[in-house]
Amino acid sequence: MDRALVVAIIRRTALEAAENKLQQIGVRGFTVIAVRGRGEVFAPGHDFLAHDPLDDEVKIEVYVAREQARQVLEAIVDAAHTGSEGDGIVAILPVESVVSVRTRAEATSG
Amino acid sequence: MDRALVVAIIRRTALEAAENKLQQIGVRGFTVIAVRGRGEVFAPGHDFLAHDPLDDEVKIEVYVAREQARQVLEAIVDAAHTGSEGDGIVAILPVESVVSVRTRAEATSG
Amino acid sequence: MDRALVVAIIRRTALEAAENKLQQIGVRGFTVIAVRGRGEVFAPGHDFLAHDPLDDEVKIEVYVAREQARQVLEAIVDAAHTGSEGDGIVAILPVESVVSVRTRAEATSG
Repeated sequence: MDRALVVAIIRRTALEAAENKLQQIGVRGFTVIAVRGRGEVFAPGHDFLAHDPLDDEVKIEVYVAREQARQVLEAIVDAAHTGSEGDGIVAILPVESVVSVRTRAEATSG
Repeated sequence: MDRALVVAIIRRTALEAAENKLQQIGVRGFTVIAVRGRGEVFAPGHDFLAHDPLDDEVKIEVYVAREQARQVLEAIVDAAHTGSEGDGIVAILPVESVVSVRTRAEATSG
Repeated sequence: MDRALVVAIIRRTALEAAENKLQQIGVRGFTVIAVRGRGEVFAPGHDFLAHDPLDDEVKIEVYVAREQARQVLEAIVDAAHTGSEGDGIVAILPVESVVSVRTRAEATSG
């Protein structure tokens, strides 16, 4: 099965909405990581100083079937979109293989 | 040299066994990140509630030669496998280049 | 637009220099994650014991235009290079798509 990795870097306040949205579209496996971010993707049009503190954000990572990747990306965008600066980004990365540690077989769903 | 990135998301209790296994097969460079996870890849067959707390997991990242990727994946699966839900996943991602900051040259091992 | 992900795993003490260097070359969006690392890429030529504590490092992730990836990699190498063991690595990963949550369109910079 062709797979992809959806990576979202969004506001911490958007995490719960994103989790709910993922659940609604049937995605049940994902990982959440606390990150700090800065710059244009977080605040386009605003200059920043190198010594400004970094913003607290969360990174969500979801391994999905390749044909589901765009839907998952759009679900997270819908959940995290406020229209103001600092909304973050969502990316799709190619993946060669995903194996379930429990079954030792290729993972067949998200 | 063709490279790949092996990413494992496993139980925290499996970290030491995974580290030992990686050392046994000659992998000496890797990164460990504290993450939280939820869902099917962690607990297939079980429903979850969106407001359940996320499980504490660790993510291991290993940059390896492309032809070594499957061996590294299998070593981590062996170390982390319990056969019960929540064992996690291991993925292989394509990588274009890995450079050593110390030597400024392509990294030749892992 | 063709995109790539530059991932750097470097000493924490090199973070500020790396941030300044990224700003100088016009990169304004990036993410910083606290990680722990061990092994050859951090200390080539030195054996390690599996129960040694992991070193504290930082991971920087930058989504860039594909043709800018090598320049960003080299900027981080320049900032983080000391020439001694433990300097870390910088990798380039392929990316299929990066969408701005604010504009809902493909991200065009940063």
